[in-house]
Amino acid sequence: MSDDDALPRPGDPLSSVSTPRPVIDEDRLTANIARVQTYMDRVGLAFRPHIKTHKIPAVARAQVAAGATGINCQKISEAEVFADAGFDDILITFNILGAAKLDQLAALHGRIGGLKVVADSAVTVDGLAARFEAGRPLPVLVECDTGAGRCGVQTPEAAVALAARIHAAPGLNFAGLLTYPKPGGARDTEAFLAATLARLEGNGIACPIRSNAGTPSLFDAHLVPSATEHRAGTYAYNDRAMVQAGHCGADDCAMHILATVVSRPTPDRAVIDAGSKAITSDLLGLEGYGAVEGYPGAVIRSLSEEHGTLDLSACEGPRPAIGEQLRIVPNHTCVVSNLFDHMVFHRNGVVTRVEAVAARGRVW
Amino acid sequence: MSDDDALPRPGDPLSSVSTPRPVIDEDRLTANIARVQTYMDRVGLAFRPHIKTHKIPAVARAQVAAGATGINCQKISEAEVFADAGFDDILITFNILGAAKLDQLAALHGRIGGLKVVADSAVTVDGLAARFEAGRPLPVLVECDTGAGRCGVQTPEAAVALAARIHAAPGLNFAGLLTYPKPGGARDTEAFLAATLARLEGNGIACPIRSNAGTPSLFDAHLVPSATEHRAGTYAYNDRAMVQAGHCGADDCAMHILATVVSRPTPDRAVIDAGSKAITSDLLGLEGYGAVEGYPGAVIRSLSEEHGTLDLSACEGPRPAIGEQLRIVPNHTCVVSNLFDHMVFHRNGVVTRVEAVAARGRVW
Repeated sequence: MSDDDALPRPGDPLSSVSTPRPVIDEDRLTANIARVQTYMDRVGLAFRPHIKTHKIPAVARAQVAAGATGINCQKISEAEVFADAGFDDILITFNILGAAKLDQLAALHGRIGGLKVVADSAVTVDGLAARFEAGRPLPVLVECDTGAGRCGVQTPEAAVALAARIHAAPGLNFAGLLTYPKPGGARDTEAFLAATLARLEGNGIACPIRSNAGTPSLFDAHLVPSATEHRAGTYAYNDRAMVQAGHCGADDCAMHILATVVSRPTPDRAVIDAGSKAITSDLLGLEGYGAVEGYPGAVIRSLSEEHGTLDLSACEGPRPAIGEQLRIVPNHTCVVSNLFDHMVFHRNGVVTRVEAVAARGRVW
Repeated sequence: MSDDDALPRPGDPLSSVSTPRPVIDEDRLTANIARVQTYMDRVGLAFRPHIKTHKIPAVARAQVAAGATGINCQKISEAEVFADAGFDDILITFNILGAAKLDQLAALHGRIGGLKVVADSAVTVDGLAARFEAGRPLPVLVECDTGAGRCGVQTPEAAVALAARIHAAPGLNFAGLLTYPKPGGARDTEAFLAATLARLEGNGIACPIRSNAGTPSLFDAHLVPSATEHRAGTYAYNDRAMVQAGHCGADDCAMHILATVVSRPTPDRAVIDAGSKAITSDLLGLEGYGAVEGYPGAVIRSLSEEHGTLDLSACEGPRPAIGEQLRIVPNHTCVVSNLFDHMVFHRNGVVTRVEAVAARGRVW
């Protein structure tokens, strides 16, 4: 029996789905895409959805159809899938290093016109500069750490120095600045970008793109006037962490994980057939590994690989029974997408389509 | 470019592997399998490896060749893959519920002779009893909660009652007792099993299999004399949690995740190309998301989906450079296996083979 044999068909009710299985509410997905694109249009920002959340070309096509200017991938292997699916404007927000990956990048640059990458060090820039040529230069943005503490140059001065290094490389075009800021960090991000832009202008270096990002503070994007575009992924599906962050309400979460109660060993304990291989261990500061619809007092207290253990002691009223199918809003939707070969879509509980998660597992 | 194009070939050095990618040390794997089987043989326990850790038929064949009596799967979909690969003695340690899964189970029972399942409730037993027939009865073990607090009947009396229910069903054979105990719980496990066995004997119900489990306290298996077999998965690869549990040493960890340093934004920070989609967020009570070989002071402080952020502030001596390939011992090897379509094996850093992770993602 292949994965396909376990999948429902359009018209099937969700109650017939073999669990555990994540499913996507079509109407919520459409509304999430429209809401964010409408906001970006209103505040005059180009919008570039990150495909990490869904890894499905059909969903990215819906995002572009709504008005997105291109897509964002994190790894070359993801970008290859989306280039195969016909996408041309692809930004890879990763330092590409090493001969093998530079060869992959060059091959991709040879077949789509809108490939762009980032760099945050001279090592990365020099590697790119040695691989690409003036006849077909590669656009490169400088990644800036505006407070999130992950990748990125640490100061506007360092950003300008790296921009100048890109600008001076015959095979590269300096395309702009990029940040993945900390949530709520609009002020710091604007200060960093504005200071860098002023210095670049003083050096006579054009900076067409200033790319800001993130779903948690997405509706603060207009508080960074130096930005020209925004990138976000999670907004398409939303999840419990985005509800917690204030980005959306519980009714905006498009993904549910269907799971079945397989054991009720004690009055206060239920065990479901979804564990860390279906829900993942991402807590993101939340209590429990997901929210159980209809049982607000139930806490998914622990996960083993194929079991989730629910604490029902705070449940008022009825408690889930053995064999009952539950709907769980995951803490972090993007990592759930990466665990399943296919995603089931539905409208009002009736399956509409099944899409291959084409870039699942493509982490290299 | 398919997944296959990114994979190394036998004879390639690990230094050429496109990261991130988990790899398995052949010699450590072989030694881990031999060490545990030798112990089980010495203490007179049948041994049933859990395939959840590797999900690869070739590894399970090596475990059986070393002396294992059969295999353990957690989900029907895993068992289907291993039945396809020629395995006959398969124990599924899960409550199987619902018409669709009972049909799958019946189909599997029709094609292999050694299928066994567990149950911990009358609901599960009655579902099985209604689906299987006296002409070809299904062996069912009663799952007992001997202290781990997951699935399982809570008392020896409840175990006997459920055994009697199975015994009375024409389509089922009561095959024995099973537990997944808490680590260090040998005394409680023995007490539960011995009390249940005495009551079963008093009721004239034979109990051929008493199946104990777990890698963390695996070498305490002889402290449960009522057991006839032991199940374990993680021992084959081992990981940082098993070192912490005292089951093995750091040199017994067969899995490493190869990752590349892609950014050094500050003197105390390195960022690698492996995040929660390659390492997973499983902490299992440990500090950091894995151990970095050669840099004992480095702590993998946080993971985003495709980045890992290392705190180098406690590093003495040299620190990793941009472009350097690191070897990371994961906290939990079983969940890493489930993220990759292929597993690369090596001996002394030279690739020996690439195996499809045949049961990857089969969680239903």
